[in-house]
Amino acid sequence: MQLYHRDVISQAVKIDHDAMAAVEAGFVALGRGEVVQPPILSMAIEESNGEVDVKTAHIRGAERFAIKISPGFFDNPKLGLPSLGGLMLVFSAKTGQLDALFLDEGYLTMVRTALAGAIAARYLARQDSRRVTVLGAGEQAECQVEALCLVCDIDTIDVWARRPVAAEAYAERMRTRGFRVEVHGSVHAACERADIIVTTTPSRHPILHARDLPEGVHVTAIGSDSPEKRELDESVLTRADAFVCDTRAQSESNGELKALGGKEAPFKVHELGRVIAEGQRLRLSDATITVCDLTGTGVQDTAIAGFALSRLADD
Amino acid sequence: MQLYHRDVISQAVKIDHDAMAAVEAGFVALGRGEVVQPPILSMAIEESNGEVDVKTAHIRGAERFAIKISPGFFDNPKLGLPSLGGLMLVFSAKTGQLDALFLDEGYLTMVRTALAGAIAARYLARQDSRRVTVLGAGEQAECQVEALCLVCDIDTIDVWARRPVAAEAYAERMRTRGFRVEVHGSVHAACERADIIVTTTPSRHPILHARDLPEGVHVTAIGSDSPEKRELDESVLTRADAFVCDTRAQSESNGELKALGGKEAPFKVHELGRVIAEGQRLRLSDATITVCDLTGTGVQDTAIAGFALSRLADD
Repeated sequence: MQLYHRDVISQAVKIDHDAMAAVEAGFVALGRGEVVQPPILSMAIEESNGEVDVKTAHIRGAERFAIKISPGFFDNPKLGLPSLGGLMLVFSAKTGQLDALFLDEGYLTMVRTALAGAIAARYLARQDSRRVTVLGAGEQAECQVEALCLVCDIDTIDVWARRPVAAEAYAERMRTRGFRVEVHGSVHAACERADIIVTTTPSRHPILHARDLPEGVHVTAIGSDSPEKRELDESVLTRADAFVCDTRAQSESNGELKALGGKEAPFKVHELGRVIAEGQRLRLSDATITVCDLTGTGVQDTAIAGFALSRLADD
Repeated sequence: MQLYHRDVISQAVKIDHDAMAAVEAGFVALGRGEVVQPPILSMAIEESNGEVDVKTAHIRGAERFAIKISPGFFDNPKLGLPSLGGLMLVFSAKTGQLDALFLDEGYLTMVRTALAGAIAARYLARQDSRRVTVLGAGEQAECQVEALCLVCDIDTIDVWARRPVAAEAYAERMRTRGFRVEVHGSVHAACERADIIVTTTPSRHPILHARDLPEGVHVTAIGSDSPEKRELDESVLTRADAFVCDTRAQSESNGELKALGGKEAPFKVHELGRVIAEGQRLRLSDATITVCDLTGTGVQDTAIAGFALSRLADD
């Protein structure tokens, strides 16, 4: 068993085309029905305002699979600790032996989540997208943009965040990376000129409505990954010409399909892996509005962990 | 994060009264409704004849919780590797930080499973039990008897196993431990004089029937821990004066309540933790027949892991 810490892993695995190809291959396998992916194991630890999630998936025929354990303890900042942690265990799919333990503190999750956003944009957004609106100002607000640059020439960011000071700080950070950045006082103003909108907040109520969507926009919803979170108003889903999610089951339980409150969707629900695997063209014109809801899947973890191990073993 | 291997763990944690008290406290907490215990996460890896199970539980107010990962790869013996492995991760229930990794290769599972059998016998079997019938001749066949000796004065073992040579080898091993051992050619003959019967086989079909049960016997069923396994005929369940399991939900999905094929039980289903917590007396006389189905619960893992860490931290 090899033990790797975050610093070593973050040197070996970056938000780049190789890592994106690995995660995309995971989605394609999922789309082809080649993945065993059990429901997420989730346990609340109420007295500490905490929870722990366990995700896993196996790509049939792959040499290894990963199990990811993600604790979220939301009072940790009071103790000077991060809220979110995480580690991955990589097992041989031949023998079940533990090959590696990644004490990555959520780094690989950050990377594979950013890359999923880029993959969604690659297959759903206009290829000439240059202007991205980011709702939220946290870690994913940064690395979603970094990943989008792998698939289109982003030069301008419009940002809105619940706390204006957080949006300003984000704008400063992204300007030093060479982007033009405008901070907006409302979601509507932030979205007016968007080619792509990325929602990456911990919101429990819809922040984006159909009236905020410019023609031809692509929306990627990242924030909602648990039963109580939600970023998109139902009108966004019904306004979209194509609604895509990573997995329908997770979107219904943890993602934006919760907006339907258990009703049958009055639109077709696509899954990203199948869209890619089958070469479905959901964008029919520059006016098509596409929405992709990403809740985070075990196959992404297995894909990025296998990629990380191949990189680290090469070193 | 502290890393412990099997050899160190097995020096610190034995089948003894202290470890039994820790596991019993877990059952009692479960019985009092003080435990959060999500359903088992289970994933098959068909091409390798493998599966992996993840169990966890949190005892409200406890300092730590464990997550156990148990791979079972049943072609491993062809490669000179054991079929069953396992490891436990121990997390702080205050912060979600990883405190310890036990690379115990299933050792703590072996111990807590044996202790659960002893706990069941303590509350359900006749106190003067001396003669135990063991169906099966594997690791649990040995350590169930070792654990029973914590709660009653076992001096004689009657053993039956599907492979006579395995039963003979088991008999030899247990004789060197000071037990009188008789090997039997049939389940019925093995059970004739039993005070306690322990079933610990990987059987997929019932091996024990009501006609095999002597008056006043206590039966502990250990083997069935997955949807396809089963050791008790339905007649054993209906013949029993009291049927107890570790958790009803797991007994229905993975244990002996599968015998009912989804029908409502025509008898009361007790749970071991509540029996202990509420001081229920299910044995009314020396003629009472009791059955306890143990499928293995996350709270046992959390209990034994917390106990192990306290022992190892003392060293």
